[in-house]
This record gives sequence, structure tokens and C-alpha cells, in this order.
Amino acid sequence: MLVLRQPYLLYLGDATVKSDCKTAFGLRDWCREAVLAEWSHPAGSVTLDLPRLTPRQAAAKGAGSLIVGVAPTGGSLPEHWLDDLEAALEAGLDVVSGMHTRLTSFPKLVRAAERAGCRLVDVRHTGGTFGVASGKKRAGKRVLTVGTDCALGKKYTALAITRALKNRGLAATFRATGQTGIMIAGEGIPMDATISDFIAGAAEALSPANAPGHFDVIEGQGSLLHPAYAAVTLGLLHGSQPDAIVLCHDPARLTIEEYPDFPIPPLQEVIDYYLKVGSLTNGRIRCIGLSINSSALDEAAWAKYRIELESTLKLPVCDPVRSGVEPLADALVAL
Amino acid sequence: MLVLRQPYLLYLGDATVKSDCKTAFGLRDWCREAVLAEWSHPAGSVTLDLPRLTPRQAAAKGAGSLIVGVAPTGGSLPEHWLDDLEAALEAGLDVVSGMHTRLTSFPKLVRAAERAGCRLVDVRHTGGTFGVASGKKRAGKRVLTVGTDCALGKKYTALAITRALKNRGLAATFRATGQTGIMIAGEGIPMDATISDFIAGAAEALSPANAPGHFDVIEGQGSLLHPAYAAVTLGLLHGSQPDAIVLCHDPARLTIEEYPDFPIPPLQEVIDYYLKVGSLTNGRIRCIGLSINSSALDEAAWAKYRIELESTLKLPVCDPVRSGVEPLADALVAL
Repeated sequence: MLVLRQPYLLYLGDATVKSDCKTAFGLRDWCREAVLAEWSHPAGSVTLDLPRLTPRQAAAKGAGSLIVGVAPTGGSLPEHWLDDLEAALEAGLDVVSGMHTRLTSFPKLVRAAERAGCRLVDVRHTGGTFGVASGKKRAGKRVLTVGTDCALGKKYTALAITRALKNRGLAATFRATGQTGIMIAGEGIPMDATISDFIAGAAEALSPANAPGHFDVIEGQGSLLHPAYAAVTLGLLHGSQPDAIVLCHDPARLTIEEYPDFPIPPLQEVIDYYLKVGSLTNGRIRCIGLSINSSALDEAAWAKYRIELESTLKLPVCDPVRSGVEPLADALVAL
Repeated sequence: MLVLRQPYLLYLGDATVKSDCKTAFGLRDWCREAVLAEWSHPAGSVTLDLPRLTPRQAAAKGAGSLIVGVAPTGGSLPEHWLDDLEAALEAGLDVVSGMHTRLTSFPKLVRAAERAGCRLVDVRHTGGTFGVASGKKRAGKRVLTVGTDCALGKKYTALAITRALKNRGLAATFRATGQTGIMIAGEGIPMDATISDFIAGAAEALSPANAPGHFDVIEGQGSLLHPAYAAVTLGLLHGSQPDAIVLCHDPARLTIEEYPDFPIPPLQEVIDYYLKVGSLTNGRIRCIGLSINSSALDEAAWAKYRIELESTLKLPVCDPVRSGVEPLADALVAL
């Protein structure tokens, strides 16, 4: 399991557009207690409205890691960012990135990390070593968010459910499986970076045996309907052995994104397929509701869609952004 | 794609028991034309009945690689094997192993390989880099062997089908996905060593577009019914986009091996499940027959079992070892 040193100093580079800083805003909103401050290059203009500290000031206040919270334009790290990252290492902070480009591919950073005794953590690439899945049932309850496609709200839904359960005083842990989720949780396993033989084993390790009343809320990945990523989804599903799944969907998405030849089937079929595949490792798996990313619908269209879907599927239907996930929390408590 | 330098010198270590040399016997039987000779330590007594050559003699006759064809007792490489492997490198041969222990974990071998400019090839661990699967249909026909479990004849069946098609003068290529298969074919992709995100992409790369009448016969891995390895099976299935599958089964196996809580369902259910999952990337996928490992049955029991199964499933049922795979080749030609 990958464990990050908290609290964080969030680095915004020389970003001038908020949407380039999605990771930083996500961390501010979902783990405010783990975020100490922000820092950026003088040329940057985006702010998170957090205290602004240099790496050295942040380290003095107990920061553990500088998180690269911005996506570099063009995908490659500008030279002046490297200077800022080096300064963070020299101040005693780990530097953490979820970018495709590896921090460890820059000799300058590798040398600085060695000198300082700090880590360069490439969250997207740190697969780690896991055993083969046992398939054995373990104590505690597990819920997994699954999807009709990638990138339509599985992480957000899992975070919202975790928060809703905690707000009721229940024991719940968000289990992160992707780079942003891992930064939010401070730990997790980047499921898509694991070796194929050990995906299900990694998923078992991610949500170990727990108290009978405890909920592990596991961030889903990919989709069983995806021609490239279904294997990741399946390994995570089998290893998680979820008691409950929540299906995440965006009604504006008619085919898999970037795969126009792969239509998304009727949602009842999708649910049945997930339950069939998931039943291998948990015969009592059930779908407890849907989480809809309805950003493409106006309020009236959303109300109509939701009512129709609830009546067809006989399941609660939420949009976490519009109205929260209380009906899903209700269903989990009733498990 | 991993490509090995042929022909091979097969190394038997100091084995005194034939069954420890399964890999070497498999290579002799399935790619005799790629095997030049055998070599062993003086303490060994197993022979493949091939010419016996030292690494230097084999290199002089054109050998490209020494293959470790024996499993070390206890799993760890004895010191005197290392001397033999070092001698092979010094003679200019690559050293190839499918063992769990990596050749590259022995500094002595790494140094010798560097000096000689030869490769240490750990077939089991060489994942390579692949793109994300496109899901796009490609020319040529593909058949994938699938199974109710691991280790019950998927490689053997694929090799037998390839041979049967070639014997009919048809264009056919065995596509290797595991370590022994890769040694036999001289190339392939160890599917279980790939990064999860790229399993299906690796499977697409393994059987690229080909002539319309050409058959890729793809070695299956694992089982969709396996709680630990189903993800590997699924990625291979999706990326292979097979037109035809052959289900491999051992009637003596009532549950997944080493997973007694996972019973093997009726075979019609298993076939339907593979076709359902496989239909994502090839809507015309069909099962063209069964390959049974009937070693646990006597001749009468096998005849009875085969007739009953053929009448229930309405599909040809073969045991490649007892009577070959001609009915499967017939079904493929009729595709």
C-alpha cells in the first residue's frame, strides 16, 4: 500500500486557469484537514484561497509532502517547476505527482531527493507488490462504485458516500484506487499500475478484514463495458468482494468515451452484468442504487430522468452534486 | 513483444527426475526444429536423447540461447548452475529462464552478461510496454483456448490446433502468452506480467491484423471462474477478439484448484459466460468445441463422458492427447 506523508503543501505551478488545477481543488474540497497551504510560481495566478507558504515555511509548520496539483500544459514539466520541486525536497518535503511523466525521470530531482533523504512519489506508477488473491470472505462491509464508463463520478460518489456514512456516526473508510483518490486519502493502491496477476490480490489488500459494522467505500475504476480497461474493473470487483455496488452513469454518454463503436446498454442489463461477474467472490452482492452525473440536464430534465429511472429500476437514483447521496447511505445502513 | 534468439541449447542442471524437466521436454516435443542440443551438469542424469553440446560447441553451431529447462528443487538456483549459466553467456548465448527467481537478481550473472554483450531473459517477468487497447476489429481469424481453471491444457490444445491447421496446409500461428509457450514459439507476451491498464492492449499487439484466411491460435491464460486470475483471462479475451473459443476442462476438477470454495459450474453455463463476456469486442464469437484433459478417466469412462458431453452441448469434444484435435480443426475451417 502506498502511504503519503501529510499534511500537504499544494503546488499550482504557473497556472493561470483554474481547470488546470483540478487535482489541487479536489484535495482542498475532499481532505481540507490534510492540506496546510498552497504555493505557486510567481508567474501563476490561480489561488485556492488557502494560506500561501514557501516549502521551507510549510516544512517548519509540519508539512510532509508537496503535491503537484496542476497538470502541466503540453504534458512536460517546465524547467522552472523543477527548481520549485527541488526547493521542496531541500526543505525536507516529499514531492508527489500523479502525472504521466515520472518525477524520477528527471536526474536533477533524483539527485536532490537523495541529498535530502526525501521521496519522489509517482502515484500513477507505483504499483507495489501484492500476493495472489485468496478469494476468502473477510469481515466488514464493502461497497464499490462501478460505472458504465470511465470518468463519470465513481471517485466523487465514493467520497460522498463515505462522508454521508461518517456524518451519521458510522465507521467508514474511503479506499482509494487512483492517483487523485490516493492523494485525498493519503494512501491507497493505483489499481491500473499493478501487475495483472495480482490485481485481485491488490484489491483484497486494499480493504482488509474489518469490524462487522465498518464500511469500506471503494473507489471504482474503468468499466466492465470498456474494451481496454475492463480487466482492471474486474480484478477490483473480484478482490473487493463488495456486498453492494452503486452504478455510476452519465446520461449524456451514449457510447464509451473515445470508443464510438461501443454503445452503453440499458442500465438494467449493466447492473445484471456487474452482479453476475461480481457474484463469483460474493454470492450476496447487490446493487443498492445509482449515482448519476446529470450535469448535461437542466433541473426539469433531471427530475423527469430520475423519476423514470427509479420507477424502471426500483432503486434509489441520486446526483451527488445536485442533492447528495443520502438515499444511498440509507440503503447501505439497511443492508 | 518478447523475441528469443533461436536455436536453443536446453539446460537440464543436475536433474535426476524427468518431471523436473517438463519445460525442456515440452520444447523438444513442440519446437524440435528450434532445439539444437542439450547440456547438463555432470551430476545430472536426465537426458532428452538429443546431441550433447557444451555452450561453446553449441554457439559454434549457431545456437542463440541457453534455455533453463529444469525447475530447481526448492525454488532457488544452486551455485554450480550459476557457473554453467555464466559459461553460456561467455560463449555468446543469451540465457533464458521461466523461473520465479530472476536471473537478473544474481550480480554474477548480470556482470557476465554485460561483459559478453548477451541478454538475461526472465520470460515470466518481462512485461514490456504496450498501448491501450483500441477495440477495433482487425483482419484475420482468431481462436482462443479458454478454461474452467488454470493448468488443464490450454497451451497444449492451442499448439495441437496450430499443428492440425498447418498439416492441412492452412496459414496458422501459435500465439504464446505464458513462459513455456513463449520459449516454444520463440516470441510472445507473458500476459500475467503486463501492467493491468494494458492487458487488452498487449493482447491486441500479440495477434495483429493478418491475411483474411490466416488463423492466430492464441494460448489462453487462467479462467474467468478464477477468483485471483480472472482479470488476466478477461483482458486476453477482450484484446484477442476471438472469432472462436475452445473450452478446456478436466472432469476430475470439481472446484478451482487450491480454491475449494469455488465450484466449477455446468459446462454450458461456462460457455455462455465466456461468450457473453467475449461478445463485448467480437459480437460473432462462438464456441467451436471442447478440449478435455481426460487423464483421470480410463478408455471406457472417457468414451462415455465424451458421447454424453457431445450430445448435451452439441459440440465436438476432443482429448488432444488421446485422439488429437481434428474435429476442432474441422470446425475452424467451417467458420
